[in-house]
Amino acid sequence: MSVSLRLSCFLLALLLLNPCSRLTAQNPVADTRVLLPVPSMAQWGTSRFVLKDHWRVQLQGPKADSALRPTLTQFGAWLGQQTNDKRLRTEFVGSGAADLTIYYGRLGQLDLLDEEMYSLRVTPMGISLSANTHLGVLRGLATLRQLLSTDKKEHMFAEVDIADSPRFKWRGLLIDAARHFMPVAVIKRNLDAMAAVKLNVLHWHLSDDQAFRVESKVLPRLHQVGGQYYTQAQVREIVRYAAQHGIRVIPEFDMPGHTTSWLAAYPELASIDSTYGPAQTWRTLNIALDPTKETTYQLIDKVLAEMTPLFPDPYFHIGGDENDGRQWRRSPRIMAWSKENGFLKANGQLDKHGLQTYFNRRILQFVTKYHKKMVGWDEILGPGLPEDAVIQSWRGRKGLYDAVKQGHAALLSNGYYLDLNYSAATYYLNDPLPADAPLTASQQGMVLGGEATMWAEFADSVIIDSRIWPRAAAVAERLWSATYVRDVPDMYRRLALVSAELETLGLQHRQAPEQLLARLAGGRDVAAVRTLAGVLEPVKEYKRHFQGFTYTPSTPLTRLVDAAPAESEAARQFGVAVDGLAEYLKMAPATERFKGASSKSLLSFLNAQLRTWQTNDQRLQPLLVQGANLWEYAPLSTQLRLISALGLERLQMLEKGTAPSAAWQAAALKQLDAAKAPAGQAELAVVGHLRKLISL
Amino acid sequence: MSVSLRLSCFLLALLLLNPCSRLTAQNPVADTRVLLPVPSMAQWGTSRFVLKDHWRVQLQGPKADSALRPTLTQFGAWLGQQTNDKRLRTEFVGSGAADLTIYYGRLGQLDLLDEEMYSLRVTPMGISLSANTHLGVLRGLATLRQLLSTDKKEHMFAEVDIADSPRFKWRGLLIDAARHFMPVAVIKRNLDAMAAVKLNVLHWHLSDDQAFRVESKVLPRLHQVGGQYYTQAQVREIVRYAAQHGIRVIPEFDMPGHTTSWLAAYPELASIDSTYGPAQTWRTLNIALDPTKETTYQLIDKVLAEMTPLFPDPYFHIGGDENDGRQWRRSPRIMAWSKENGFLKANGQLDKHGLQTYFNRRILQFVTKYHKKMVGWDEILGPGLPEDAVIQSWRGRKGLYDAVKQGHAALLSNGYYLDLNYSAATYYLNDPLPADAPLTASQQGMVLGGEATMWAEFADSVIIDSRIWPRAAAVAERLWSATYVRDVPDMYRRLALVSAELETLGLQHRQAPEQLLARLAGGRDVAAVRTLAGVLEPVKEYKRHFQGFTYTPSTPLTRLVDAAPAESEAARQFGVAVDGLAEYLKMAPATERFKGASSKSLLSFLNAQLRTWQTNDQRLQPLLVQGANLWEYAPLSTQLRLISALGLERLQMLEKGTAPSAAWQAAALKQLDAAKAPAGQAELAVVGHLRKLISL
Repeated sequence: MSVSLRLSCFLLALLLLNPCSRLTAQNPVADTRVLLPVPSMAQWGTSRFVLKDHWRVQLQGPKADSALRPTLTQFGAWLGQQTNDKRLRTEFVGSGAADLTIYYGRLGQLDLLDEEMYSLRVTPMGISLSANTHLGVLRGLATLRQLLSTDKKEHMFAEVDIADSPRFKWRGLLIDAARHFMPVAVIKRNLDAMAAVKLNVLHWHLSDDQAFRVESKVLPRLHQVGGQYYTQAQVREIVRYAAQHGIRVIPEFDMPGHTTSWLAAYPELASIDSTYGPAQTWRTLNIALDPTKETTYQLIDKVLAEMTPLFPDPYFHIGGDENDGRQWRRSPRIMAWSKENGFLKANGQLDKHGLQTYFNRRILQFVTKYHKKMVGWDEILGPGLPEDAVIQSWRGRKGLYDAVKQGHAALLSNGYYLDLNYSAATYYLNDPLPADAPLTASQQGMVLGGEATMWAEFADSVIIDSRIWPRAAAVAERLWSATYVRDVPDMYRRLALVSAELETLGLQHRQAPEQLLARLAGGRDVAAVRTLAGVLEPVKEYKRHFQGFTYTPSTPLTRLVDAAPAESEAARQFGVAVDGLAEYLKMAPATERFKGASSKSLLSFLNAQLRTWQTNDQRLQPLLVQGANLWEYAPLSTQLRLISALGLERLQMLEKGTAPSAAWQAAALKQLDAAKAPAGQAELAVVGHLRKLISL
Repeated sequence: MSVSLRLSCFLLALLLLNPCSRLTAQNPVADTRVLLPVPSMAQWGTSRFVLKDHWRVQLQGPKADSALRPTLTQFGAWLGQQTNDKRLRTEFVGSGAADLTIYYGRLGQLDLLDEEMYSLRVTPMGISLSANTHLGVLRGLATLRQLLSTDKKEHMFAEVDIADSPRFKWRGLLIDAARHFMPVAVIKRNLDAMAAVKLNVLHWHLSDDQAFRVESKVLPRLHQVGGQYYTQAQVREIVRYAAQHGIRVIPEFDMPGHTTSWLAAYPELASIDSTYGPAQTWRTLNIALDPTKETTYQLIDKVLAEMTPLFPDPYFHIGGDENDGRQWRRSPRIMAWSKENGFLKANGQLDKHGLQTYFNRRILQFVTKYHKKMVGWDEILGPGLPEDAVIQSWRGRKGLYDAVKQGHAALLSNGYYLDLNYSAATYYLNDPLPADAPLTASQQGMVLGGEATMWAEFADSVIIDSRIWPRAAAVAERLWSATYVRDVPDMYRRLALVSAELETLGLQHRQAPEQLLARLAGGRDVAAVRTLAGVLEPVKEYKRHFQGFTYTPSTPLTRLVDAAPAESEAARQFGVAVDGLAEYLKMAPATERFKGASSKSLLSFLNAQLRTWQTNDQRLQPLLVQGANLWEYAPLSTQLRLISALGLERLQMLEKGTAPSAAWQAAALKQLDAAKAPAGQAELAVVGHLRKLISL
């Protein structure tokens, strides 16, 4: 291939025009096509299986097993929607011609992290899906869904032979239903999305300072003080629905910290006598149960006795994080008890870790009594922790390695915190077992996988989908696919496809922000609002807590920052184009610049985008004045106009081949620094890319 | 399942009657059936594909690639033989109905240890085989061959969906063609066998003290002094044949030790001036090239310049083992040079390792000049060894770990020495990466796999097959299948199937010993000779060198010890039955003993076997006298009679329920000790099992 062709393919790929994109694929997986996560092996044919007006499924598995029927029926209904064919129904046929034939050996056991390998074969004659367990069949169905495509009026599945199995057995998503309540429908559609990208563990964070979200018939005040909660019937319904999709449900009841809601119901559990209400703030309160009172343990025993039977999974999460022990130190009673029982250090200070380990060990007795294995955050790691307790590392990779070195199975969540609003690429490149992990083979075997976490301080039931998806799919691929599958541009290409797929499954990650924008536009120029929101991102990490705007659980999440994407796709694509331009300038001789069609189209792409951003401020002005919700973002709109103008000037110079003056560049960079200032807890996501353009 | 049923199934399984054998399978692979190595996933159907009188193959791969055709034609011819259908030919069809349809993406690159994953699907309608590379297709064909079965007059392949990929990329067999010459036909049929069990590297040991086995046009004396050798055309032919089967060929030219044959041709290379002939002994001579003469390197350069182009593989093995430096120390010239060049230690002793490393570094320059990467045995590991040199560990697992910790890719051969005559189980359970291997992820990634080694001091071209097969297949499964596939009884069950399969491929591992027995029987009672040979094994490890019988390269390997199996199957099965009896006695209440049909059949199996052995001595007497070759084994025949009689007595007591007297047991054990004495470098393989029976 000639240099110029390679060059233009390279540019076309940047412009996300597919034909050449495979040339830029950098991983050994020859052809990822439309699949996310990437399977272990995919052999693509040239033909396809065309969908007729029927969907006959033949199920060859263990006798009298109907585990797969609900999901298969759901899949058939989905096919009907996609093809707008109301008649299309799943017909289960005993024998004879079938469109989809499923062979499987036995019912997989979710709780044993059982085999999920499958093989899927699409031929013009039909589709066959085989697996050792029904779990493998479910994973294969998720792959099959991604293979559906439409050409003119015809619906088809691409001809392919896939053999696939996961790298890690524990691939989870944590949903925090305590900070904001998430109704059953929200959990269910997120379970659909999880299944679509082969995640297999829902970590359900059910209690915290703000509320205890499960109905308790024994201690009803627990769920009453927090307001909304799940009835026990609803919990069972969700567990059943998850199991249908091959997803385990692991409940978390956080203790001894994160328990203000318990104290609101039962103040006698408190370390410091006071009157408590469910927390109306997001601060880490370090309010903790009293670990020295027997009554505390009696009540916890009651709670676990009632809660554990609701969740069939053998694992039970007791939290254990973020209690700095300040309340324990302040309580003369607890200090006295600690002295008696040897929980003071030589210097007379409280041995907080020792005391919390004592607490954990007491809790563990109950967890064990109810036939569960304990899962907890890094902090629970300590002497006396039984081997079969699982450590979930949120504070760092070291916690993961320490845990397995001490003989505990462990999960990585550090680096998978979706609520910190990092880019999908950041999560994607965070490998639980990088090649240089200093672990023996058996220690590595104890790294079960990881979990993406969606803490919900800034996500309510309306916008949570848009905070989870599509970025969680990047984590899903990291945990399923081979470690060498790490081609970031290709991941983003497929992430866009997954995002569209999830919409067909009823996820609200695109629709909900759009509705928010419409409301903010108040029936006026929504496009202008959309353009601004499209290049905004909420401030990263925990900054949103510290921007002079105090949030409470009842603060409505209906401002522009809530409609802004966690990762701006417009900004990302602009950045890719700028990088492409930089590469192009290196590769193309000065005399030859911008002669080729593709380099021209790259330029016009950048120019058009910048002009849109530059002119948007004016369009937005009339709307900004109409209310504080928009007005607070006026500075960002103005800054976007100013820095876009700078970008346009720089592009002109590049076209003309003239260099920018030192003075111009200095002024420009000053302007860009000013544009970094957030407003309304949001910031412009394009500042860095424009800085790069200016500095070319 | 009732206790008694479980009990009898357990016994039946012991008696190697298949129906229940799956009940005893202890590994997670539900159903290994007839496959060795066990694939990653096999989903067995209930139907089958019946072979008609044609074999139509459709090949869908990269344009104009014919890499697979020779192997496919060979496969078709094999099918014809198995089905006695002379008309059956491989027809390559462009489209339309095919019996076997093959899809693959690209030509695999052998030298890059390329992907070998494949997926194989047998349905009543046809067979399809897919892979990313043509190497995967070759592995799939090996699996398909094992699926062929015959029922009455019908030939069929079982319905199954298999997805499979190897655990290790380097799965080798070393064949020593230096100690005894192995003609082209021998190498070729062993390549067929390697492909059948998915081994993919032939490590061809081509020069040693006894001979240099490759024609050299530049330095013809090299191959002339050793007698038989491969012409360069023959080498190319074998490399081509191996590549057709997806097998790499790595030549080994051992230096600076193991080079007496070089010195016979070019005495001026010697460390000690003397006249040398090709070694006529098997002793480790520690004769080495002179590492201090430039002429040595000039000649080696010439050799490598001529030899390297014959072998396309990027790896080139320079040996480097077993030179203790005694010749270097004895040579005043070398000692003087070493003093000048700083290869003496503080105490004035020669720094032998330093000097050999210097030699290696010089050799490496040539290896690199000819675009090869160096492979060598443990001993070459040392400072200055370049990162891309591969270490093959023969001395121990530690060598393997040291190598990867120092950044070298490495292979395990320690524990895979077929010539030491260990049991298949011993090799099978020797895992290159056990769970507790103290290596990081990246270090583990550098363990490429392993190699079974067939050193040929005691194997000539006639019996070598029986020394390699079927035991090498156990190594093949260890290197291909998952680490948890380690059910020894199930391995032996499948090993018997592989042994039969290899016979259909023309391997001589059963036929050659049988012919030897016939010759030894001299047309008389061969069955009696077979019975004795069947319970004999050559003495283990290197003992055969030290039994008062001195072997030379010209000693004929035609005695009973050469016809005796490396691992006696008769003895093994007898041992399984004894273990089964012991288990049974634990499980069955004294009053209930030997009432059930299966316990009766276990007893009768043991009785029959012991009676056969007991009466065999008398049948053998007339033959023993006829020649030294048999006469030297008379003591073993007698001992077999005596200890079998003891076994029969013990069985009677067990049936009667009477206990043996202390005196009887003492006498019996004394007899068993006497029976341990080897004769004719062979020993009775049943002594241990009989000791166990006696002690029950």
